[in-house]
Amino acid sequence: MYATVLHGPGDVRYERVEDPKILKPTDAIIKLSATCICGSDLWPYRGANPITAPMHMGHEYCGVVVEVGAEVRTVKPGQFVVGSFCLSDNTCPHCQFGFQSSCAQREFMSGAQAPYARVPLADGTLVATKEMPDAAMIPHLLAVSDVLGTGWYGAWAADVREGGTVVVVGDGAVGLMGVMAAHQMGAERIIAMSGHESRSALAREFGATDIVSERGAEGIARVMELTKGIGAASVIEAVGTVGSMAQATGVCRPGGSIGYVGVPHGVSFDGQQMFFKQQRMLGGPAPVRRFLPDLMERVLQGRIQPGKVFDLVLPIAQVAEGYKAMDERRAIKTMLQVED
Amino acid sequence: MYATVLHGPGDVRYERVEDPKILKPTDAIIKLSATCICGSDLWPYRGANPITAPMHMGHEYCGVVVEVGAEVRTVKPGQFVVGSFCLSDNTCPHCQFGFQSSCAQREFMSGAQAPYARVPLADGTLVATKEMPDAAMIPHLLAVSDVLGTGWYGAWAADVREGGTVVVVGDGAVGLMGVMAAHQMGAERIIAMSGHESRSALAREFGATDIVSERGAEGIARVMELTKGIGAASVIEAVGTVGSMAQATGVCRPGGSIGYVGVPHGVSFDGQQMFFKQQRMLGGPAPVRRFLPDLMERVLQGRIQPGKVFDLVLPIAQVAEGYKAMDERRAIKTMLQVED
Repeated sequence: MYATVLHGPGDVRYERVEDPKILKPTDAIIKLSATCICGSDLWPYRGANPITAPMHMGHEYCGVVVEVGAEVRTVKPGQFVVGSFCLSDNTCPHCQFGFQSSCAQREFMSGAQAPYARVPLADGTLVATKEMPDAAMIPHLLAVSDVLGTGWYGAWAADVREGGTVVVVGDGAVGLMGVMAAHQMGAERIIAMSGHESRSALAREFGATDIVSERGAEGIARVMELTKGIGAASVIEAVGTVGSMAQATGVCRPGGSIGYVGVPHGVSFDGQQMFFKQQRMLGGPAPVRRFLPDLMERVLQGRIQPGKVFDLVLPIAQVAEGYKAMDERRAIKTMLQVED
Repeated sequence: MYATVLHGPGDVRYERVEDPKILKPTDAIIKLSATCICGSDLWPYRGANPITAPMHMGHEYCGVVVEVGAEVRTVKPGQFVVGSFCLSDNTCPHCQFGFQSSCAQREFMSGAQAPYARVPLADGTLVATKEMPDAAMIPHLLAVSDVLGTGWYGAWAADVREGGTVVVVGDGAVGLMGVMAAHQMGAERIIAMSGHESRSALAREFGATDIVSERGAEGIARVMELTKGIGAASVIEAVGTVGSMAQATGVCRPGGSIGYVGVPHGVSFDGQQMFFKQQRMLGGPAPVRRFLPDLMERVLQGRIQPGKVFDLVLPIAQVAEGYKAMDERRAIKTMLQVED
């Protein structure tokens, strides 16, 4: 088959690769219904992470099971499934504790920007729907796999409460999903920090009550003004840069919580400063598996439409243009159509 | 009167100073029933914090109100009171949120290693008992003011749960109080990291179920062995050094919580490492005022005896020896008797 391979910074190709096959008895092979490009794919694309060998890209996926290994019990060929970008056995103590993204057997999904993909640890990773969903549901179910699941975890880690005040730092796809999550969790006030009109509009559609377009010290001052000098009890940090983390710690009230879900790049904390700021901090790769059944149900009931975050849809053969559009911030998030 | 003044590293003197007096209408003057030396007093004593002017030492206190300013409403002369080392108005949004140690008007108490002391923000800081407590209660009530309150906050910040597993890093007075707090909160397993026999014995008396005397990588390995490779859901860090913080992050399970109450000195965190460890972190000066009524009640009912942490009792005139004994780790914590 053809699949997406990153050869170096900016050099992403749709090229011939070997077909995926069952390597372990706990694997499944799925035929993707659609796939997409993640903001985190841009780190290696931009050269921020080293590329030592051609990388098979893609970790967000949903589709139909075509084959399973001998030990797979919970999914079977013909079923529609969604999985997490973190592969987990869902039985180890960390999984049982709700942190499947720190599973003792954890692996990260790869190779999903392709028509077919191998999913290791299928029993612990995949969740099947009862029926085959309509085509219109595919973008929304695909979004659950990572971008919504990550935004949801960010909101959970930020301890979003009914009636609470939330600040979302970052108007990328994860930040926008953080807005949706906070709204679903009943936050009364959701302040989205966004300087882009189309993203602000989407943030409002997803539940943001206020938009702060200023950045840096001005952005912090504006949030403090909106919160009467108190700051927010919950802050979702969805970027991972030094600047975005400073925004997050700058607007969180003492005793408030920061859920940081952008992989930090170049970020460090001084222990004593962190101590006196007295903010609760929890980050990490999202344990999407914990949230999958609930989020899939919300999608299938039509309560949320996270797939609206895809503002560019391309045939997978044009994946390189999908990366370029996101890199240049022309697109929030690119969905890739897989030929039937 | 005479009081305790630090002039430079190792140079603590009991010397004549001006009597404290009401400076603001929200002040109270108390006659101390007893006072004590805090582990944090050792930072400037050891030269780890710069001393630019003579420091009036002491921030842990209980005693009898002798005078109040014109605006003080909730305490009156003749009442026995305990206060927090953090002075707070207890009415601002941060106080109402339970974080009185980040009060908009926050000050830190000083000058309490003396027979009399001025307590600013008396209404928001002091809690009176209904009756004059017995002399035997004084050490236990004194301990509530900081050392128990701080250990309690550490346990709360570490999200200690009934039936849970807790690791306490540090066998100083705060660590030992963290053990007591975890025990009161119903933890099933409390692993105290302590290499000192007398401190280990006290930790056991306060509720520790296991003692780990190894340090560094060996200490971490021993805790992991005791927890079947999982780590603890709750970790109380009660020292503040690079080594103790490494112990804490080394034994906390993914998704677990670290309450760090030792003021960090020279500690920093790499954002990406912190992200992938996926541990919830909350530190800061303890909002003791939040816990005061409950902790005083536990003491007065005889349910806890935190004053046992004082293993050296000296007349206040010998305060210099009290510092020396703690500095040399001959004493866990020194109580100072104030002449009548």
